[in-house]
Amino acid sequence: MHFDSDYTNTCHPLILQRMAQTEGQSLPGYGTDAITRSASDKIRRHCQCPDADVYFLGGGTQTNMVVIDYLLRSFEGVLAADTGHIAIHESGAVEFTGHKVLTLPPNDGKLTAKQVDDYVTTYYADPNWEHIVPPGMVYITHPTEYGTLYSLSELEEISAVCHKHGIPLYLDGARLGYALAAEPAGADRFPTLPDIARLCDAFYIGGTKCGAMFGEAVVFPNIKTWSPRGENRFFSHIKRHGALLAKGWIAALQFDTLLEGDTLTSTPYFTICRHAVSEAMRLRQALVSKGYELPVDSPTNQQFVRVTLDRAAELKQHITYGEWEPPCGNNVTIRLATSWATQPDDVDRLIQLL
Amino acid sequence: MHFDSDYTNTCHPLILQRMAQTEGQSLPGYGTDAITRSASDKIRRHCQCPDADVYFLGGGTQTNMVVIDYLLRSFEGVLAADTGHIAIHESGAVEFTGHKVLTLPPNDGKLTAKQVDDYVTTYYADPNWEHIVPPGMVYITHPTEYGTLYSLSELEEISAVCHKHGIPLYLDGARLGYALAAEPAGADRFPTLPDIARLCDAFYIGGTKCGAMFGEAVVFPNIKTWSPRGENRFFSHIKRHGALLAKGWIAALQFDTLLEGDTLTSTPYFTICRHAVSEAMRLRQALVSKGYELPVDSPTNQQFVRVTLDRAAELKQHITYGEWEPPCGNNVTIRLATSWATQPDDVDRLIQLL
Amino acid sequence: MHFDSDYTNTCHPLILQRMAQTEGQSLPGYGTDAITRSASDKIRRHCQCPDADVYFLGGGTQTNMVVIDYLLRSFEGVLAADTGHIAIHESGAVEFTGHKVLTLPPNDGKLTAKQVDDYVTTYYADPNWEHIVPPGMVYITHPTEYGTLYSLSELEEISAVCHKHGIPLYLDGARLGYALAAEPAGADRFPTLPDIARLCDAFYIGGTKCGAMFGEAVVFPNIKTWSPRGENRFFSHIKRHGALLAKGWIAALQFDTLLEGDTLTSTPYFTICRHAVSEAMRLRQALVSKGYELPVDSPTNQQFVRVTLDRAAELKQHITYGEWEPPCGNNVTIRLATSWATQPDDVDRLIQLL
Amino acid sequence: MHFDSDYTNTCHPLILQRMAQTEGQSLPGYGTDAITRSASDKIRRHCQCPDADVYFLGGGTQTNMVVIDYLLRSFEGVLAADTGHIAIHESGAVEFTGHKVLTLPPNDGKLTAKQVDDYVTTYYADPNWEHIVPPGMVYITHPTEYGTLYSLSELEEISAVCHKHGIPLYLDGARLGYALAAEPAGADRFPTLPDIARLCDAFYIGGTKCGAMFGEAVVFPNIKTWSPRGENRFFSHIKRHGALLAKGWIAALQFDTLLEGDTLTSTPYFTICRHAVSEAMRLRQALVSKGYELPVDSPTNQQFVRVTLDRAAELKQHITYGEWEPPCGNNVTIRLATSWATQPDDVDRLIQLL
Repeated sequence: MHFDSDYTNTCHPLILQRMAQTEGQSLPGYGTDAITRSASDKIRRHCQCPDADVYFLGGGTQTNMVVIDYLLRSFEGVLAADTGHIAIHESGAVEFTGHKVLTLPPNDGKLTAKQVDDYVTTYYADPNWEHIVPPGMVYITHPTEYGTLYSLSELEEISAVCHKHGIPLYLDGARLGYALAAEPAGADRFPTLPDIARLCDAFYIGGTKCGAMFGEAVVFPNIKTWSPRGENRFFSHIKRHGALLAKGWIAALQFDTLLEGDTLTSTPYFTICRHAVSEAMRLRQALVSKGYELPVDSPTNQQFVRVTLDRAAELKQHITYGEWEPPCGNNVTIRLATSWATQPDDVDRLIQLL
Repeated sequence: MHFDSDYTNTCHPLILQRMAQTEGQSLPGYGTDAITRSASDKIRRHCQCPDADVYFLGGGTQTNMVVIDYLLRSFEGVLAADTGHIAIHESGAVEFTGHKVLTLPPNDGKLTAKQVDDYVTTYYADPNWEHIVPPGMVYITHPTEYGTLYSLSELEEISAVCHKHGIPLYLDGARLGYALAAEPAGADRFPTLPDIARLCDAFYIGGTKCGAMFGEAVVFPNIKTWSPRGENRFFSHIKRHGALLAKGWIAALQFDTLLEGDTLTSTPYFTICRHAVSEAMRLRQALVSKGYELPVDSPTNQQFVRVTLDRAAELKQHITYGEWEPPCGNNVTIRLATSWATQPDDVDRLIQLL
Repeated sequence: MHFDSDYTNTCHPLILQRMAQTEGQSLPGYGTDAITRSASDKIRRHCQCPDADVYFLGGGTQTNMVVIDYLLRSFEGVLAADTGHIAIHESGAVEFTGHKVLTLPPNDGKLTAKQVDDYVTTYYADPNWEHIVPPGMVYITHPTEYGTLYSLSELEEISAVCHKHGIPLYLDGARLGYALAAEPAGADRFPTLPDIARLCDAFYIGGTKCGAMFGEAVVFPNIKTWSPRGENRFFSHIKRHGALLAKGWIAALQFDTLLEGDTLTSTPYFTICRHAVSEAMRLRQALVSKGYELPVDSPTNQQFVRVTLDRAAELKQHITYGEWEPPCGNNVTIRLATSWATQPDDVDRLIQLL
Repeated sequence: MHFDSDYTNTCHPLILQRMAQTEGQSLPGYGTDAITRSASDKIRRHCQCPDADVYFLGGGTQTNMVVIDYLLRSFEGVLAADTGHIAIHESGAVEFTGHKVLTLPPNDGKLTAKQVDDYVTTYYADPNWEHIVPPGMVYITHPTEYGTLYSLSELEEISAVCHKHGIPLYLDGARLGYALAAEPAGADRFPTLPDIARLCDAFYIGGTKCGAMFGEAVVFPNIKTWSPRGENRFFSHIKRHGALLAKGWIAALQFDTLLEGDTLTSTPYFTICRHAVSEAMRLRQALVSKGYELPVDSPTNQQFVRVTLDRAAELKQHITYGEWEPPCGNNVTIRLATSWATQPDDVDRLIQLL
């Protein structure tokens, strides 16, 4: 039983079927094909953003590197939570492009609008500001590395602060499907895809961790605003970073398949992520009712549990899980992740084991 | 009828079938899976190089960028023909990593051992050498951008010159299958895969242009020799360039499928490339017998023909082709490329059109 | 007798005197001092460009690297003659910043407006343009590495072509003093400092090779046009390249001294460079009248002469000279450079030796 | 009365005199001259390190950028205190070279051997280590940004930990003169120049902040150990970063002047820094006896004092000082820095003002 991550299962069957249907077809290269057009159109429609520019890239680190290096001016850095993926687990890909990651202490993986506002304000008030890397954009993950989500109002506030200061907001949606499929908690709902397209200057709809073989769909609602001299040259920028697929349709086809549907809730993308979230919620309730300590309150497919080292060793005989943080005393925090491929029976059995 | 390039057809059916078989499987991430091991083993076997390190990357530009940035010391440049892919068609990806491409005039797309020897010797004889970018490696393409091939003795000579000067030789095999499948011409045969593994310090076996959906297999026969402080850190290097696939098995699976077979000649990889070369040779003979001018003598799947602008316009009504160079007077050089998917009937019809 | 270069003599005495006068003074850091303001004002006045932004950097390679990396967008390259200093003798400093140097064959060290126009036009006409590094600016040297000069009309033409294509023109004036001091040849005069400020988007007035200890004065007539999002952030850009002097006044003081005077021709800068050029012209006439072959017609302080290897060996016993190109057969081209410090007696003696 | 920093006074008179003596001399370029040799020899002698490689660079940020980029392998980061100069006040120069600054919480500006050991050990124990930037060297400042010093045993311990883990230790000695001139405190003395040369793999002897016009002397006791493939190519590396002075002797001359003397204590460098430290100690005693709060215990020329905002405003009418941290409530921490040029009378008057 695999609960270690959401990208160990190979690929959703619909994608494999669709791929098989391409046999014998001839398609022009570099994303100039009809499948790429179709997938882009679907994304624009689901985002209610008819003028958005859409690009398909290979993976999360690549996408972050390419997008951040495009949005920043050469001398600027990117503000991120110090638990942010770009700050830790990307082998310095952002620094490779010459930019500093400026980190802030997170709140369950999230940044607040106030933190961003204070940082930028303090920066420009510093008499030595010209000797310090300026905050040139804000990077957030949604869901975060801790499974948590920004509420709509939180996202609106961060967006407003960014735009007050004239810097773009970029949302890393490696697991965006699970955010979109989360159940609203309390009065403040979670942002929809059109909300995100309205509030962010760039974001990506994650494929790799949401049922695709690989691929992330980058959306720029207003790319010219952030392009050097107002000209969209993102295509060459992708190529220069070694990130352009010759057969661009391969990544697009996966989104074209997953995002088929009149409304987002009718798409396979939503359906499979909703399944994963539902199973995670079942697991969460069981954990809570059995008295386990959950360090964060995650409404998505990743659940974090503090267990004793003995308990962890026991569980390891039955399931795979993620070790999230190094052990602390006699305890360790582990991650249990569900996915589109998680079997309800496996969750039942895991609950019994707990 | 498509003769414009060898990567417009989607993917070889064997790969699609194999992919479909992964349904429901769970595989660990980042190339630590059994498929990647199997594909790597096959490559080591076909190369007769049991200790080689093998990595699977996404595309040609990415592979060149990542490999060259690994082999070079920070202050060094890479020697290449000025028609070399890295010198022209990669949007400056090598320069993005901080390295200069040092170019030499090509001979039908190829470098000679003498050119390399002279360049390096002249460099170190220059009183200002320390102010000039040193040649830190040699980059060749095989087949070249003009479809030509290095003979075994030519490759042996370049390899000897590189090693005399203590710099690595890297072979870009984006279309390597077509080189391996080419018919020997004259007394001097073309290098085999074991020859290449013996003579080069790094090379890649091209997938994207040889029947795969995407993917290139990088082979380092002796990676520690060229690693900083003798330690292989290529994995982190890949990640830092945004080039690491979370589901690493996707690229490996394609090579595992294409390279199945006791001997290289029994593999699908060889068989489909041999087919493409055979069709190209049929086409070439027809061109020669009809009196067309062929600017280079290509033994592989790319054929270049000089035609009048009128003739080119006529052909365009029936086939796609590549425009290789801007028109010169009343003539233009076009590229006709065959692939694993080329239908013999289409070649027949093209011959009739000529 | 030293004729090998114009930067072997330590420094003009006026600068040493002025430096000595700073004893005991206290000046704020990073170019915020009164000397820097004064030097900048003088430059603006001599350029007849009251709104120019002026910065003082340490040396030529540094200046080229910092300015080019500022003017280019990240994905762009810089057009230069393949004899251009940035293309050869800067150890790949431009590539270090991620940019490709796009080279064109020179005409006695110069580019023509037609070459630039053709290159840019051809680039955008190429169906693969988005895969190729775009020409994002033009770099010229004046005087060139061969001592030659652009005439006013040549500079006007190149400037017009650049601006037609929307790219900036940058003039490397490492030896600008010798250009300004050259005698007009024929009907078409050489550009003055106001001409250069009117026609170029950036240029520097060289100090190191024109009598200073070190230092180059960068002038941007219209920096906001070429700044990302229209905001001048060159100060931070300098710092980020490690090129910001804590005691910024040191470089400025040298220009403040050399450029003292109501008109350029009354400044020490002009006077000492005029001296060097006059001596070079005397030498040149002697060479011509003695039948030596001069590969280029240089009106400035660098003279190039083709001599036999025997003659070169003989001269070496009496003078230092520069070996410009590797020997070709029995001949070698040597450089004889005068400077502000060249003694007329030494030139007389050299003429006798010839 | 200037107490804001140690680099506002122009330059020590001995240097101005020595500079004036170069009038009329001719010296070869790029540090191949006799003055550079002499200064290097003096440094090797004072360091008791006859085989050290010595280089002269322009300023602190430049030196840090150039040295760190040389010592690190491309995929590595540099460990530093989060108050370290490279982490804050260098406009991202280290990131510009592609490297991440990995920060640790400081102890009065210092790192401990245990912190370094824990960081490196934890790094390699992390199952995801290959996805995280590895600590490839340690950067310390001595004196630190808070004027504090490593004791000999602290430096020995950090050095031992670095070498246990196979990574180099680099000491930023922008203000090294003040460290060498500090009075030993307690049983554990401060490291001497030979101690530093024995324990560090690279360090620089600061000029800019210790009486020179500009310039830092980089010392590598064992450069080949840390050079790629064991070959010292630091000269080209400097040039590639735009940091090579054409007239290299200018920086060297200043060290040749300041380090003249049989023993370090007899050199102007030591004498002027000792003067600054003595005056700082007088000031410190006065502050303590008047009951001021000193946040750190600095034995060098920088003293930090917590004062009320009213008091700070009063002082501002008489002296310049540095504002070290933004005000906190009603208090602010200011920096009072002495230098070689500080007049004892000024210190007396400042003490009376307090």
